[in-house]
Amino acid sequence: METTMKGLWLEDRKMSFRADLALPKLEADEVLIKVLLAGVCSTDLEMVRGYYDFKGVPGHEFVGLVEDDNGHPDLLGKRVIGDINISCGECERCLRQEPSQCMQRKTLGIFDYDGVFAEYCKLPAKNLTVVPDSVSDVLAVFSEPTAAALRILDQVQVKPSDKVIVVGAGRLGLLIAQALKNTGCDLKVVVRRPEPAAILAGWGIGAVYADEIKGALADIVVEVTGSPEGFALSRSLTRARGTLVLKSTFAGDVSVNLSKLVVDEITLVGSRCGNYPAGLRALSSGLIQVGDMVDSIFSLEQGLEALARAGQPGVLKVLIRP
Amino acid sequence: METTMKGLWLEDRKMSFRADLALPKLEADEVLIKVLLAGVCSTDLEMVRGYYDFKGVPGHEFVGLVEDDNGHPDLLGKRVIGDINISCGECERCLRQEPSQCMQRKTLGIFDYDGVFAEYCKLPAKNLTVVPDSVSDVLAVFSEPTAAALRILDQVQVKPSDKVIVVGAGRLGLLIAQALKNTGCDLKVVVRRPEPAAILAGWGIGAVYADEIKGALADIVVEVTGSPEGFALSRSLTRARGTLVLKSTFAGDVSVNLSKLVVDEITLVGSRCGNYPAGLRALSSGLIQVGDMVDSIFSLEQGLEALARAGQPGVLKVLIRP
Repeated sequence: METTMKGLWLEDRKMSFRADLALPKLEADEVLIKVLLAGVCSTDLEMVRGYYDFKGVPGHEFVGLVEDDNGHPDLLGKRVIGDINISCGECERCLRQEPSQCMQRKTLGIFDYDGVFAEYCKLPAKNLTVVPDSVSDVLAVFSEPTAAALRILDQVQVKPSDKVIVVGAGRLGLLIAQALKNTGCDLKVVVRRPEPAAILAGWGIGAVYADEIKGALADIVVEVTGSPEGFALSRSLTRARGTLVLKSTFAGDVSVNLSKLVVDEITLVGSRCGNYPAGLRALSSGLIQVGDMVDSIFSLEQGLEALARAGQPGVLKVLIRP
Repeated sequence: METTMKGLWLEDRKMSFRADLALPKLEADEVLIKVLLAGVCSTDLEMVRGYYDFKGVPGHEFVGLVEDDNGHPDLLGKRVIGDINISCGECERCLRQEPSQCMQRKTLGIFDYDGVFAEYCKLPAKNLTVVPDSVSDVLAVFSEPTAAALRILDQVQVKPSDKVIVVGAGRLGLLIAQALKNTGCDLKVVVRRPEPAAILAGWGIGAVYADEIKGALADIVVEVTGSPEGFALSRSLTRARGTLVLKSTFAGDVSVNLSKLVVDEITLVGSRCGNYPAGLRALSSGLIQVGDMVDSIFSLEQGLEALARAGQPGVLKVLIRP
């Protein structure tokens, strides 16, 4: 086995392709995973823009093959997906069974832990879920964002009688729309382009443009744009005593009329990572579909092009196959 | 009966005492109430500062005597408190039994409806609750803010095992602290002065100064300062996946790190008016006490002094007795 590998490297806010990266060094309970397919997420693009202070291999959406089980023989040779939160298992949050909010956590390809835009990555064995043979690599690589989409339903009870609006129809928004549609709610998705509207129509989900929906009021609104304008629109669409779910991170602070939240008694819910087996299960069963969401597949050597492509307006899922 | 009355008048952001105000004109279902005692709230002070655009008689905390029942004989001569939200009874929110969020509502002494800093006020009969003889005027006048304090428990399940911090120990904060203490939770209140700390100690509630509590993490934090600094402290005290209740209005927008709310999966809950019979009941039964909260009682003629006094740092409840 080689001792070096190819991969992308982020340092001082500069992304580069390198052929001489060290293979991941396994600590106790960590297994070595050959990356089969990786997905580019908006968070990766924000890291390129310098929004996160991270040095290392970026990337956190993946499906891979366990090559060194490091004492977990049941995982050897298995295809796996993995929880991106590397938790300590000992802090208050871990003891409350909330490892994704571990107070000492590292995050795969985001914080203090090398990610998946490389030939190999590693993760603790407890983070991994084995992928059934019936699920393709392309489907499995959506497990992480699908879990994040489903996380909303862990936090908020969405009822069939609820009016729900999703603001933003990008990579994550399209998965969220499907997760919400499955509740039977009265759903609309705010789009900026005809392409996601067409994809949504294929799933039986109605799309509207921002200027068509102004003045409407929904019980639950999900913000998936990460822009101050998207937040303002989402807020304006949330009825008094309604719930506004924040699903995207924002570059910098946003000016918020807190008094209006008080007077209208709005509930704002920050929503992050979900349950990975649930994400995989929804994809495996067809509850959530990938459809035409894959835009393109690049090699690792083309990694910088992949990220540039993913940053183009309207481009959905860009994948990297090492 | 006179056709004019004494009262305070707010116009073009200027407050004045006037002896020639017209008596309230009763519409269908409105009854005429002689104000026995009125309370000054921080919202009144914000109105003086021009934060609300209101022309008319301010004031919304009161206990009064029904003098003209206008076809509701069961109310004649009764002491009453009243819901400050004048609702249409026909809009979507009213039909959902949420009249305090009526989409066409007027608000007593705050929006499009004359208030209680006068000899007489009016309210729809359906807004009124009769005060038992055993409850004094001084106690009954706290019904509105006590209902607002209890509103938190309508919205958030506060468990005996929860760590809870209230940031702000003014008029409303002291009532909120008692409402929360009754849940059996592990409660701390952030104060800026020794006086409220002493009052809290009398109720068996621990007080801390802001610099003593920095770094602590609570399951539920209640913001009752209405200042950007108070919001920042409250946010920093809310654990990942915790709940931050906003109970005060803020002058102007506040800059908020929405990404941190997402990553920490914080739930922000705007909280406004509560159930008035519940407020009265809690005061009547002693579940919530007024203790040493009354600072002073002024006449209507001294109304401007009353408001000035209420605006002094550390001053708790100022009452006006017409």
